[in-house]
Amino acid sequence: MKQSQLWLPTLREAPADADAVSHQLLLRAGIVRQLAAGIYTYLPLGRRVLRKLENIVREGMDQAGAQELLMPAMQPAELWRESGRYDKYGPELFRLKDRQGREFALGPTHEEVITALLRDELHSYRQMPVTLYQIQTKFRDEKRPRYGLLRGREFLMKDAYSFDADWEGLERSYRRMYDAYSRIFSRIGLEFRAVEADPGTIGGDGGTHEFMALADIGEDTIAVCDQCDYAANLEKAEFRKVTGTETEEQHQLRTAEPTKLHTPAIRKIDSLVHALGCEASHIIKTIIYLADGAPLAVLVRGDHEVNEIKLQHSLSIAGLELADAETVERITGAAVGFAGPMGLAIPLAVDDAVTNMPIGIAGANETDYHWRGLRPGIDFKLAIRGDFRNAVRGDGCPRCQTGQLVFRRGIEVGQVFKLGTKYSEKLNARFIDAAGKEQPLIMGCYGIGISRLLSAVVEQHHDAAGIRWPHAIAPYQVHIVPVSMKDQHQAEAAELLYEKLSAGGLEVLLDDREERPGVKFKDSDLIGIPLRIVVGKAAADGKVELKWRDTGEVKVVSLEEACSAAAGLKQEQDSCL
Amino acid sequence: MKQSQLWLPTLREAPADADAVSHQLLLRAGIVRQLAAGIYTYLPLGRRVLRKLENIVREGMDQAGAQELLMPAMQPAELWRESGRYDKYGPELFRLKDRQGREFALGPTHEEVITALLRDELHSYRQMPVTLYQIQTKFRDEKRPRYGLLRGREFLMKDAYSFDADWEGLERSYRRMYDAYSRIFSRIGLEFRAVEADPGTIGGDGGTHEFMALADIGEDTIAVCDQCDYAANLEKAEFRKVTGTETEEQHQLRTAEPTKLHTPAIRKIDSLVHALGCEASHIIKTIIYLADGAPLAVLVRGDHEVNEIKLQHSLSIAGLELADAETVERITGAAVGFAGPMGLAIPLAVDDAVTNMPIGIAGANETDYHWRGLRPGIDFKLAIRGDFRNAVRGDGCPRCQTGQLVFRRGIEVGQVFKLGTKYSEKLNARFIDAAGKEQPLIMGCYGIGISRLLSAVVEQHHDAAGIRWPHAIAPYQVHIVPVSMKDQHQAEAAELLYEKLSAGGLEVLLDDREERPGVKFKDSDLIGIPLRIVVGKAAADGKVELKWRDTGEVKVVSLEEACSAAAGLKQEQDSCL
Repeated sequence: MKQSQLWLPTLREAPADADAVSHQLLLRAGIVRQLAAGIYTYLPLGRRVLRKLENIVREGMDQAGAQELLMPAMQPAELWRESGRYDKYGPELFRLKDRQGREFALGPTHEEVITALLRDELHSYRQMPVTLYQIQTKFRDEKRPRYGLLRGREFLMKDAYSFDADWEGLERSYRRMYDAYSRIFSRIGLEFRAVEADPGTIGGDGGTHEFMALADIGEDTIAVCDQCDYAANLEKAEFRKVTGTETEEQHQLRTAEPTKLHTPAIRKIDSLVHALGCEASHIIKTIIYLADGAPLAVLVRGDHEVNEIKLQHSLSIAGLELADAETVERITGAAVGFAGPMGLAIPLAVDDAVTNMPIGIAGANETDYHWRGLRPGIDFKLAIRGDFRNAVRGDGCPRCQTGQLVFRRGIEVGQVFKLGTKYSEKLNARFIDAAGKEQPLIMGCYGIGISRLLSAVVEQHHDAAGIRWPHAIAPYQVHIVPVSMKDQHQAEAAELLYEKLSAGGLEVLLDDREERPGVKFKDSDLIGIPLRIVVGKAAADGKVELKWRDTGEVKVVSLEEACSAAAGLKQEQDSCL
Repeated sequence: MKQSQLWLPTLREAPADADAVSHQLLLRAGIVRQLAAGIYTYLPLGRRVLRKLENIVREGMDQAGAQELLMPAMQPAELWRESGRYDKYGPELFRLKDRQGREFALGPTHEEVITALLRDELHSYRQMPVTLYQIQTKFRDEKRPRYGLLRGREFLMKDAYSFDADWEGLERSYRRMYDAYSRIFSRIGLEFRAVEADPGTIGGDGGTHEFMALADIGEDTIAVCDQCDYAANLEKAEFRKVTGTETEEQHQLRTAEPTKLHTPAIRKIDSLVHALGCEASHIIKTIIYLADGAPLAVLVRGDHEVNEIKLQHSLSIAGLELADAETVERITGAAVGFAGPMGLAIPLAVDDAVTNMPIGIAGANETDYHWRGLRPGIDFKLAIRGDFRNAVRGDGCPRCQTGQLVFRRGIEVGQVFKLGTKYSEKLNARFIDAAGKEQPLIMGCYGIGISRLLSAVVEQHHDAAGIRWPHAIAPYQVHIVPVSMKDQHQAEAAELLYEKLSAGGLEVLLDDREERPGVKFKDSDLIGIPLRIVVGKAAADGKVELKWRDTGEVKVVSLEEACSAAAGLKQEQDSCL
């Protein structure tokens, strides 16, 4: 493509409201333009990148044996009522009526549609396993659309759905998708982790993994091992259990009775640490919850946070909420900030780290007083024990024996999910199994946020001057930049290279514009094509300059060498397939 | 692909409400399924065909120098208000509100969005010409969705928009798209005509052509020449003007005064013909209109129909409507059905065919009476003359000297349209021309109904047994059908062919299902892959049967010959590119 013909409006400055580096660069490099909050147009350069992403995802799906279909964006509200999600989904679901007054939703996802389709068309275990996918535009009325394509309201997704006759089949389908996702994200050139995540309210009986592109702007915190490939969302992250026998010193500590401290108006861990000169890890935090309506005190160390999801799973609590001040005061007989385990007449859920403390400081259930030297197991019961806290930096990796957990931020770019029979039960999608019995279809669902990937890649691949596209999804592989098209040597060499490389199957952009070299180089850095060939004065001697956008490496070579270098790029890309 | 793995639910019978052959076949062959009225899911086989159509259109656009982008489906209502179409578009526009109460339209077309985009990004004549296109899902709330994909409410379109600095540029852009469309439709294997059409209410200053796939189910009537390639929509069709000098016999007829006939309750042409034993072509029909509010009588021959669009264009009438009975009675002084030109006190617009009549029969402006022998130009004035009628079968072609017009039905699959400055004026999208003056962008728009093409192709390419896909868009090129997979010779030969042809780059479907041969052949006819290779008992002697779906031609050949025949198919397809 000749750049003079390419409709590529670049910007020197990003609009003030562009709130992420990737967002700024996608605007500046002429990749996208905003039409409305969270709604974007992909300009020609962006459309090319998006199509490459689509194709990589499509090839990955096809290789994994999934079959492509295409479902509508407009979905009858009745289907969403059958699944029970029409009300549950809340204001994120765009709703509209047709001219007859029939209600529709703009699909943010397609579980209902595909389950209803298979209900009508799939009747026997012999027709399974089958995995169907689509690459299609989704709609979600985000409360706060932001970060450009990272949280949009109209976006491109790949969603896939597997159907199996038994749970082992679901495991195999799930694993095939998991592996395909790993290959796809690797091929794109993304630094990512597949993290164990909590199925949460999306429902379904089984497990789920989120594929997280590591990036500081990510909205999710991930615990990753510094040694092995363990990774999990914060709410799901486990860690090695610390065990050990009581030392003599600890035993000694536990022989003394607790002493009461006057701590006027000192309600917070920080203030206690400050007032007593102790460590947060010496304090026992007591938090009063209502667990399915009944009061429950949860004890964690002062430097730890309660993990409500672990708590809920571990104690089979459906509804968990913090008790309000009034309830806390009624239960403890003291102002908020002075709750403690000793003498509390409600069940105590004690985190393992508290169980392991020889003694600790805790509220005295009396306004303005704390206990020092409170002994877990002596001064209060350890009837309910377990892992009720978030992992913290330095916790031991639960998988390998040596690693420690560190924390990263991640952008969710994909998710694989064992739905089980949630939707097939609700929509009554059944098949006849080998024994002739009717069973609900066993489902999995698998998403990749294709437009979001574009932002995630740019978050990871950029520098101060612009984007650095990974080879596999670069809009063009080679950018030929003649310093002056008016110089006959340069113009001829540039055209020659352009013809040769294009004929060799490379995607080449030739900057044939009559702009100053500074403008051309700035644009070239900004749009970030992997290999730049600068054709300058040395073209008269048959020499050009290669510059790799990624590493910044520069090399002066002959025209032939330039061709081979570019051809190498092509081979590299083909070998990704 | 092995058919046992392909999710392909075929049906023996089409649902009762499938109202067109193509609709029935698309359902039966497992191409689409309906989700709601006019809203369809494309099953894996249908998705493949749709993607081939997309790719052919994309390649055609790229070759014509157009650049692909992708605009959103959700469009802010403000833009539609700027163009004045938010109200005008009526109930066909799907409308919705976001959680903030902001109004959006689901785009049935993208003139507003792209004009607003270019308004912000295109400032100089140097940036033109530019043509941008997208392949994208459109929404239109059709009053009566029907014929499957032919009139849907959510459908896939290619829409393109050209921007030029002058009108000559628009001509060139328009012609490039026109030529690209002709190549695209030819490559798909469609019998089509590019017809001159009326810009109608879509607006725009310039001309327009509709690309019509010829098919009996088509909703439009097209006049085509039986000799040359002239084609036009009925409302636009012209014809050779008949001129000639008055014959002696005609002159004689015109010497006699008209005579009044008593024609009690005879109001219609048919009844007159019956009662008087004359031809319809001997009658002068007088129709009273209100043209921009003022009465106007239009005279056409009894066997002709008024063409209101020609009338409006010719006489510069903005609003034209038939006068109601009361008005007719007031103007003619007679009941409806007895209007005639003689003595009428309102302007007469006389069609050329009436002008050419020596004498005619017409209403007497007196209830239950007609005149016979009324002389155009003598008994009433020919002040306003012109072509005010629809073409009829047998009219002379306006382009060649020898052809006659015949009528066909057509499905509109594409349209090219000179918009001029309609949208750029409304949305204030201007550029600086070479002289430094601000000018509105000069636009064209160009659509292809991609999902509709699928139906149009099937309307043209089918027989009683099923679809006959043209090579370029067939979901697979070769269908290998072993009579029995349990016969070792057959299974081996089938697998061998499958491996060899797939390795040669062909798309091959192998029916490895354990079904009865009758079922396999029925399915094979139904899904209509161009070349079928039947592997039966003769496989033991290295022989298989070739059957071309299109012609029904059958040939028994060796395995090698089967391979070469299939390879020929591949070359044929490649050469379309």
